[in-house]
Amino acid sequence: MIKKILVANRGEIAVRIVRACSEMGIKSVAIYTDADRHALHVKKADEAYNIGSDPVQGYLNAHNIVNLAVAAGCDALHPGYGFLSENPVLSEICAKRGIKFIGPGPEVIAQMGDKIQARNAMIAAGIPCVPGSDGNLADVEEARKLAGKIGYPVMLKATNGGGGRGIRRCNDEKELLANYERVISEASKAFGKPEVFMEKCVVNPRHIEVQILADSQGSAIHLFERDCSIQRRNQKLIEIAPSPQLTQAQRDYIGNLAVKAAKAVGYENAGTVEFLLDQDNNFYFMEMNTRLQVEHTVTETITGIDIVQEQIRIADGMPLQYKQSEVQFRGFAMEYRINAEDPKNGFLPSFGKITRYYAPGGPGVRIDAAMYSGYVIPPYYDSMCAKLTVWALDWPGVIERGRRALSDMVVYGVKTTIPYYQEIMKHPEFRSGRFNTSFVESHPELVNYAIQFPPELMAAAISAAIAAHEGI
Amino acid sequence: MIKKILVANRGEIAVRIVRACSEMGIKSVAIYTDADRHALHVKKADEAYNIGSDPVQGYLNAHNIVNLAVAAGCDALHPGYGFLSENPVLSEICAKRGIKFIGPGPEVIAQMGDKIQARNAMIAAGIPCVPGSDGNLADVEEARKLAGKIGYPVMLKATNGGGGRGIRRCNDEKELLANYERVISEASKAFGKPEVFMEKCVVNPRHIEVQILADSQGSAIHLFERDCSIQRRNQKLIEIAPSPQLTQAQRDYIGNLAVKAAKAVGYENAGTVEFLLDQDNNFYFMEMNTRLQVEHTVTETITGIDIVQEQIRIADGMPLQYKQSEVQFRGFAMEYRINAEDPKNGFLPSFGKITRYYAPGGPGVRIDAAMYSGYVIPPYYDSMCAKLTVWALDWPGVIERGRRALSDMVVYGVKTTIPYYQEIMKHPEFRSGRFNTSFVESHPELVNYAIQFPPELMAAAISAAIAAHEGI
Repeated sequence: MIKKILVANRGEIAVRIVRACSEMGIKSVAIYTDADRHALHVKKADEAYNIGSDPVQGYLNAHNIVNLAVAAGCDALHPGYGFLSENPVLSEICAKRGIKFIGPGPEVIAQMGDKIQARNAMIAAGIPCVPGSDGNLADVEEARKLAGKIGYPVMLKATNGGGGRGIRRCNDEKELLANYERVISEASKAFGKPEVFMEKCVVNPRHIEVQILADSQGSAIHLFERDCSIQRRNQKLIEIAPSPQLTQAQRDYIGNLAVKAAKAVGYENAGTVEFLLDQDNNFYFMEMNTRLQVEHTVTETITGIDIVQEQIRIADGMPLQYKQSEVQFRGFAMEYRINAEDPKNGFLPSFGKITRYYAPGGPGVRIDAAMYSGYVIPPYYDSMCAKLTVWALDWPGVIERGRRALSDMVVYGVKTTIPYYQEIMKHPEFRSGRFNTSFVESHPELVNYAIQFPPELMAAAISAAIAAHEGI
Repeated sequence: MIKKILVANRGEIAVRIVRACSEMGIKSVAIYTDADRHALHVKKADEAYNIGSDPVQGYLNAHNIVNLAVAAGCDALHPGYGFLSENPVLSEICAKRGIKFIGPGPEVIAQMGDKIQARNAMIAAGIPCVPGSDGNLADVEEARKLAGKIGYPVMLKATNGGGGRGIRRCNDEKELLANYERVISEASKAFGKPEVFMEKCVVNPRHIEVQILADSQGSAIHLFERDCSIQRRNQKLIEIAPSPQLTQAQRDYIGNLAVKAAKAVGYENAGTVEFLLDQDNNFYFMEMNTRLQVEHTVTETITGIDIVQEQIRIADGMPLQYKQSEVQFRGFAMEYRINAEDPKNGFLPSFGKITRYYAPGGPGVRIDAAMYSGYVIPPYYDSMCAKLTVWALDWPGVIERGRRALSDMVVYGVKTTIPYYQEIMKHPEFRSGRFNTSFVESHPELVNYAIQFPPELMAAAISAAIAAHEGI
């Protein structure tokens, strides 16, 4: 039985994992670099260890982290998302050192991390994939010929890429020729590997992903889908479960497909199978994420299943607690990634001190935050400082609840994406429940909101203006 | 259509009502006395008006409040709970001034507020009631005779009482004779009316109450029950939905009984029918509360129905949105009343400045709070400063989630009931799901928890001790 878990991450996801440990009666160990000395995950864990002065490198040193897990008496390690979570080396070192890795084995992580291998495995399993190169491109000439055959637009993608980077769309041969070397260069720099492959570009797709759980006994279930079509430059902003755009037949189809995909690769633990849904309602496999996702909260909210607790049970060798027929969803959940960014200024990160933070509350509101009043957001990490997840019995209800909860949330001191999301909630296209991944790009006017000053600042400004007017 | 609502209350319930208004696109108007100048409900409402310097009287002046509602252009008024919520005069003045009262009409409020009238109405409707005097007691001699007939212990109750006050248990004739004049005196002082009646005392009952909704078209449904057996001196501390102590057959029986009771008195809007469940599994009508209850959150959490929004729709003349068969519950919800009280010191109120407040988050956690960091809890009101509601798919899960969320909640500056509730979560009797209203009284050892100092204070104390030791 797992008794103590090292949480190899930071921020809200580290807090999330600590909470799951606490509910299961498992001790939690946090790690932090100097920049994270005052971070919330350090305060919430049972123990916390400094792993160095470099803000980022400490979280990326797999050997150090596993050594610490062993020294601290941990019997398991949770990688969270980002950082080392999809690096097969961490999973491998854990296995060697007798630490249970809360995620799949290194082979599956490596296989799914390589887009070509993943694609080939899916094709072999009968999962529909977008037409493409079925392997790395040898040279630009092969790229040109293939694009002519499958038809423009096409996508050039880094084979070892992820997180929306190392991807370029080519609308014609000219763009293809211009982008080919660029993607190779980006891939080399960002992922250390120059390989690229080609896929037909699915125009204005919807991004539909399925949460799966698979145990070490070979059982796998899905927890329905999430609609992550509200993205900006391939970065998800708002995620919804279930998708308001699917029929129940489509939902069953895609859920079963994801389970089939997971079983085909011998998957174990929680994972996500991402699909594109085109305008003719064809689903295509996009990629499989071999870790917990940021947006797992919406699935937890509609199913009631605690995905992190399930991950821990699976890593401990227990069989799944639920049969597929026992997994039910209810209502709609929507997650907003509250990023410390200025939407009016190209979504530029807005780091600094949170002068006031007040979490929204009331019915159907869940908060996963990594901040508090007085917390200084360090400039070294992702700009996401909180996730707001709302729930209601129906689609119009969840939109109104989200609108209300966003207005209920107080974050002063930094700019955030809150007012931008409020504009999305008012937009007729979004409200209709019919939108695709081009939504954000097609609506640049969404940043034209009036800036709302905090009421106390407004009061001070008005007093000052009156004083000036009266010549005081 | 209701467009603007005056919220005739303060604290967390005023915030709760403002949130419902916001989700429905209805403007909200707060009222506050000087002591509540910095209260959260004032900040959250669209408009806020000062109603005087006396901390309490402003909230009790029905004429003033309705005048303000008219002057501010409101078309409806929500009374919340406490204050004027069960005073038929407010409902009556609203009706006269053309303001929709979000609650039942004055006749029903008056009828249910009079314990004798309520009891007689229930007996007439075939609802089981505890054996008793079926009317006010004429004198102590009648009390003595009746007690001899129905058997000790008996309860003496103020006919116009409520909220656990004006009630005395008499275990034998001696106690009856001693308490008779006391209850009359208490009733005169607290409720302005000396009438008392007698009921057989149900020994160690469970407190089971049913939430009902009834519209102006005569339809009524129930939203299942709440178990409020965890009480101290008739004040609820922890409420649970559904009750872990009922079979589905009992649940159906009591739900239908509550709907029958509501229909019998022509009830309209949200209400609660409270029952006692004795050791032989007999249900007895106790009273009907003609308002929103503190603990409505647990019912909202398991059913997904927003009770405050339903109240507003009903007051606006709309039919119920749900048929009984469409009301479903899922999992277990538990609410903790976070009171600013010191459990180790007889639950003495602990008012003052909240030096730090951090709301718990993560899966299955709802917060309804009336405080923030820096807020000073005024000494004039109820000591409840927040409600923590947790939810999970099963009974053991909701206990662990509650335990975790309680430990996740930071309230520094005042003493609270948080550590006391943590002890209850660990108690085998509570965990077994079998408990009655004697639980708190039978376990005085629950206050013997170790006081946990905030980590920063601990660090300061340790530094000081080291400095002293080293003679710095």
